[in-house]
Amino acid sequence: MTDPHAIAARYLECWNERDPARRAALLNALFAEDASYRDPLMAAEGRAGIGALIEGVQARFPEFRFAPAGRADGFGACLRFSWQLGPEGAAAAPIEGTDFAELDAGGRLRAVTGFLDRVPQPA
Amino acid sequence: MTDPHAIAARYLECWNERDPARRAALLNALFAEDASYRDPLMAAEGRAGIGALIEGVQARFPEFRFAPAGRADGFGACLRFSWQLGPEGAAAAPIEGTDFAELDAGGRLRAVTGFLDRVPQPA
Repeated sequence: MTDPHAIAARYLECWNERDPARRAALLNALFAEDASYRDPLMAAEGRAGIGALIEGVQARFPEFRFAPAGRADGFGACLRFSWQLGPEGAAAAPIEGTDFAELDAGGRLRAVTGFLDRVPQPA
Repeated sequence: MTDPHAIAARYLECWNERDPARRAALLNALFAEDASYRDPLMAAEGRAGIGALIEGVQARFPEFRFAPAGRADGFGACLRFSWQLGPEGAAAAPIEGTDFAELDAGGRLRAVTGFLDRVPQPA
């Protein structure tokens, strides 16, 4: 399979890209046309749906960026990787998660399922 | 969804059950008939195939037992949980992993994908 680290990096690049045209180009290259995304809070179908979901998260956390956390690994068509989301350059990110993903036969993401490892505690 | 902790506990119970008839009964109750299993080393289809795979792992590690590690969590039809595999009662297990699973509409496991978090280092 393609290097899980490389796929995870490209995936997080999609989530960080604020320019709609550049984000769409990244999504087209990385995701299958009928790709699906789901996490405990949100779900989307198709590249456009996933792009809209990402745009919503960016609007909610305008100062935050995703960064890889730990190692990505995978086998066959499966991979998993962890990430953190927080203010760019901050030492400790308030939000962390782990995504499980499956590739289609062409090596594009066809399903991503996200789990939350850390979320901010209520003040 | 059914409590992820409970599903993870029943899943590990299948892996620990040495009696073939009792293991088959546990597998029938927990897994969908067409369930699939895959990890970096092995894959199996159907309850009987998964049962045979489990029996092979038990034969390879006759003194080892699976135990839950950390919290299990899930949403919708998805869950994930971590486990450790080692000699019963040992303080530190040599093998650890995280499984991602999907349930069918009836709440039975239809797909389990396992990842290895820790494996013994070559001596």
